Amino acid sequence: MKFFVDLNSDIGEGYGAYKLGMDEEIMKCVTSVNCACGWHAGDPLIMDKTIKIAKENNVAVGAHPGYPDLLGFGRRKMVVTPAEARAYMLYQLGALNAFAKANGTKLQHMKLHGAFYNMAAVEKDLADAVLDGIEQFDKDIIVMTLSGSYMAKEGKRRGLKVAEEVFADRGYNSDGTLVNRSLPGAFVKDPDEAIARVIKMVKTKKVTAVNGEEIDIAADSICVHGDNPKAIEFVDRIKKSLITDGIEVKSLYEFIK
Amino acid sequence: MKFFVDLNSDIGEGYGAYKLGMDEEIMKCVTSVNCACGWHAGDPLIMDKTIKIAKENNVAVGAHPGYPDLLGFGRRKMVVTPAEARAYMLYQLGALNAFAKANGTKLQHMKLHGAFYNMAAVEKDLADAVLDGIEQFDKDIIVMTLSGSYMAKEGKRRGLKVAEEVFADRGYNSDGTLVNRSLPGAFVKDPDEAIARVIKMVKTKKVTAVNGEEIDIAADSICVHGDNPKAIEFVDRIKKSLITDGIEVKSLYEFIK
Amino acid sequence: MKFFVDLNSDIGEGYGAYKLGMDEEIMKCVTSVNCACGWHAGDPLIMDKTIKIAKENNVAVGAHPGYPDLLGFGRRKMVVTPAEARAYMLYQLGALNAFAKANGTKLQHMKLHGAFYNMAAVEKDLADAVLDGIEQFDKDIIVMTLSGSYMAKEGKRRGLKVAEEVFADRGYNSDGTLVNRSLPGAFVKDPDEAIARVIKMVKTKKVTAVNGEEIDIAADSICVHGDNPKAIEFVDRIKKSLITDGIEVKSLYEFIK
Amino acid sequence: MKFFVDLNSDIGEGYGAYKLGMDEEIMKCVTSVNCACGWHAGDPLIMDKTIKIAKENNVAVGAHPGYPDLLGFGRRKMVVTPAEARAYMLYQLGALNAFAKANGTKLQHMKLHGAFYNMAAVEKDLADAVLDGIEQFDKDIIVMTLSGSYMAKEGKRRGLKVAEEVFADRGYNSDGTLVNRSLPGAFVKDPDEAIARVIKMVKTKKVTAVNGEEIDIAADSICVHGDNPKAIEFVDRIKKSLITDGIEVKSLYEFIK
Repeated sequence: MKFFVDLNSDIGEGYGAYKLGMDEEIMKCVTSVNCACGWHAGDPLIMDKTIKIAKENNVAVGAHPGYPDLLGFGRRKMVVTPAEARAYMLYQLGALNAFAKANGTKLQHMKLHGAFYNMAAVEKDLADAVLDGIEQFDKDIIVMTLSGSYMAKEGKRRGLKVAEEVFADRGYNSDGTLVNRSLPGAFVKDPDEAIARVIKMVKTKKVTAVNGEEIDIAADSICVHGDNPKAIEFVDRIKKSLITDGIEVKSLYEFIK
Repeated sequence: MKFFVDLNSDIGEGYGAYKLGMDEEIMKCVTSVNCACGWHAGDPLIMDKTIKIAKENNVAVGAHPGYPDLLGFGRRKMVVTPAEARAYMLYQLGALNAFAKANGTKLQHMKLHGAFYNMAAVEKDLADAVLDGIEQFDKDIIVMTLSGSYMAKEGKRRGLKVAEEVFADRGYNSDGTLVNRSLPGAFVKDPDEAIARVIKMVKTKKVTAVNGEEIDIAADSICVHGDNPKAIEFVDRIKKSLITDGIEVKSLYEFIK
Repeated sequence: MKFFVDLNSDIGEGYGAYKLGMDEEIMKCVTSVNCACGWHAGDPLIMDKTIKIAKENNVAVGAHPGYPDLLGFGRRKMVVTPAEARAYMLYQLGALNAFAKANGTKLQHMKLHGAFYNMAAVEKDLADAVLDGIEQFDKDIIVMTLSGSYMAKEGKRRGLKVAEEVFADRGYNSDGTLVNRSLPGAFVKDPDEAIARVIKMVKTKKVTAVNGEEIDIAADSICVHGDNPKAIEFVDRIKKSLITDGIEVKSLYEFIK
Repeated sequence: MKFFVDLNSDIGEGYGAYKLGMDEEIMKCVTSVNCACGWHAGDPLIMDKTIKIAKENNVAVGAHPGYPDLLGFGRRKMVVTPAEARAYMLYQLGALNAFAKANGTKLQHMKLHGAFYNMAAVEKDLADAVLDGIEQFDKDIIVMTLSGSYMAKEGKRRGLKVAEEVFADRGYNSDGTLVNRSLPGAFVKDPDEAIARVIKMVKTKKVTAVNGEEIDIAADSICVHGDNPKAIEFVDRIKKSLITDGIEVKSLYEFIK
């Protein structure tokens, strides 16, 4: 049996004079990047450049739409209507798509950012609105979302391409949701343990929840970070461990059909 | 000999709780609308709705990108680099295009807004950057720009589709540029005179400049306004007068090839 | 025994090219105005002009800070930290205060806007943060807040000046909170009933809750609206009815000490 | 004869998740800081914290208002009216002042940022509008502006407190303006030469212009930068050299009366 998985990282998160993250370095390690679209981060020049660099590095690019909250970096819960959610997602997806077209490439996937990601993973109305938008814009775009979430299930039910995402460094509740960041067990701090967990997720489709229970989990893509040199180094280690363990690391479009 | 012309109007210029212009009314009179893309005006919900209404009214839709200046409604001169100009245009064009796709339609044209329009009409570097972006995004999108401008000429030279735009209510200098708003002769205030002028422009490709000289002018589209009931009424009069005079009023895509 | 009450209305809610509300008309009817400070609405030119007009009309001006959400007009719930709440309130209060100083006047009060108002009325941490800010900026500024709220009580406990606000057109729960807009009894639609209710609130400090219970309520200021001619007319009727009923209508600073 | 001069640096230039400059380090070297006010950079939390740190370091704080152009970091020329310029300056000055008050301190000065600074230094209408605003807000606030500019002269003529600013690393034209950044002689790259120049400016009130001419220049404050470790080191060198040369380095409020 063959195993494979995608490694994804957020990217293009600067704004005007501001820079964030080590984009050029993380590009060397991952197979998919989620590019900020100008609302919680990112601006047109950065989006253009990010897509250029991704193309040069043979990394697949996706849109990473966020809430209209640059000041809060899209991390703050905002109550938006489903109609707004669909429209905000479409706006940002379309904006990024223009740079993909201008650079002779295509968007592989769409992954929501921060509070938008978290809220749409659990609120059915939001998830439906986001899926409506993708369906109407381009059915070929892969929806990357929390493994096991309503959005993942509903996306598949509609016949959309869905990539289920897991987190190397986060604890899971027995229902498959992430342990709240303020609770014990929220983070897997030991790198070796984190790596062992993702390998297990990919190969056995299981993870040990915070209460000790073994639960089902699908791992099409692993979320990693490129914020600082140490983070980059860790991604490099994950990647090498996956490969050593016989898991092929490749972009979603190569196996999500 | 057959004559035809397009009538265009700006539209979708609200933002959040704010509304501007009589969009539903002007839709009944014009053949093309320029839809704000969220930078100088417009927001995702408004863009979506505007495209829906345009489609229902069989009016062709174009993107109307502006400078990043909501506070100044995109009317203030800003010094942006050509790279910024191209990227700002692409971002907004792509964003609006997403709503066109989601609504099962296509963008017919692209017309810059306010200060962006005026600056790109005369600054070659800006015009080139804007044309680069359109070429890279979608060669089928018609570039609507000031009649006789460098942007019009260069667009044609590149093989792009170009629509030359005239103004019913503005005076022209002998070099084909508009008389500055602060100078005498800037505005044609008499409606009958304005109508006579546009009919002459369409039929003879001439207009009388502010110094009395007859100059050449191409009139593919006439810019009109839908700000208030009186403006709507005037557009209705222009349209009827054009038709009465044997000029067919139709969307750009029907005759700009 | 003498009765008095203040009438307050939101004002200065335009932005750039956008206008909202009939500011000049409502100024003639009310005794206090809450001026938007540029975050959910308002801009520096509008703030300056609004204070000028208020001064000419002898109407007391207060700051009306909102969430950083121009797109949602500050009406959307956003999860901000207490530190952010204090800082956002101070920023806007200070900004408006500059125009008060430049126009030779002073800010009478501070009333939060929309979702910020609603959340700070019930969340103690937010209310404390807002009160901290006012205390540190200027103890003389009256805190206008929901009648009976924690913010009202805590403000008084700290020795700050507090004005308790009531709504003519809204139903109350038996615990003094407003009936949720989506539930029956949320609105008092009959103008005569609304007027009778506010007169009763001012004179007896009681209101009939949605469940029929008589509850305590303090009414230092009545919130009214100036959105359209009919709203203005209603405010005029309220004011006349109050006066006819022997209630003096005057600005907060005249009786909140 | 005693000599003294102020050293000033821009500060608080982050935004939300973004950080820029080494604020805590530069605070140790300078005597005045210019704090961004949220328009071209800065946000309420950062403004609050920056003033706290400045106070702890005994550094005088001033407002640093910029154009409404976060995307361009306030460095892009924008055509604003004098009324807008006055209002934008007042808004930001007031906003920062709120944090000064909340932290029990006062604003020492006001220095415009980027394109706003450059345009107001040469355009009389803009300079007048800015001076009007300061006069109306608080006559005690020192106006820091380009040495020899119209704004400096007119500020003094009105009886305002004015601090004339010089640049250690920039070349001067014979009329006292800065050499355009794109022309030869725009920058003084040798640190020793830069230091020698500022010492000469302070002691002799002369500087050698780019054409070799000796011109008059007043140096109340020297603009320095804290962007990176090397810049900080250079500021430290300037400061030590000034002191070694018998020039007292102290805040503007100690000698601008």
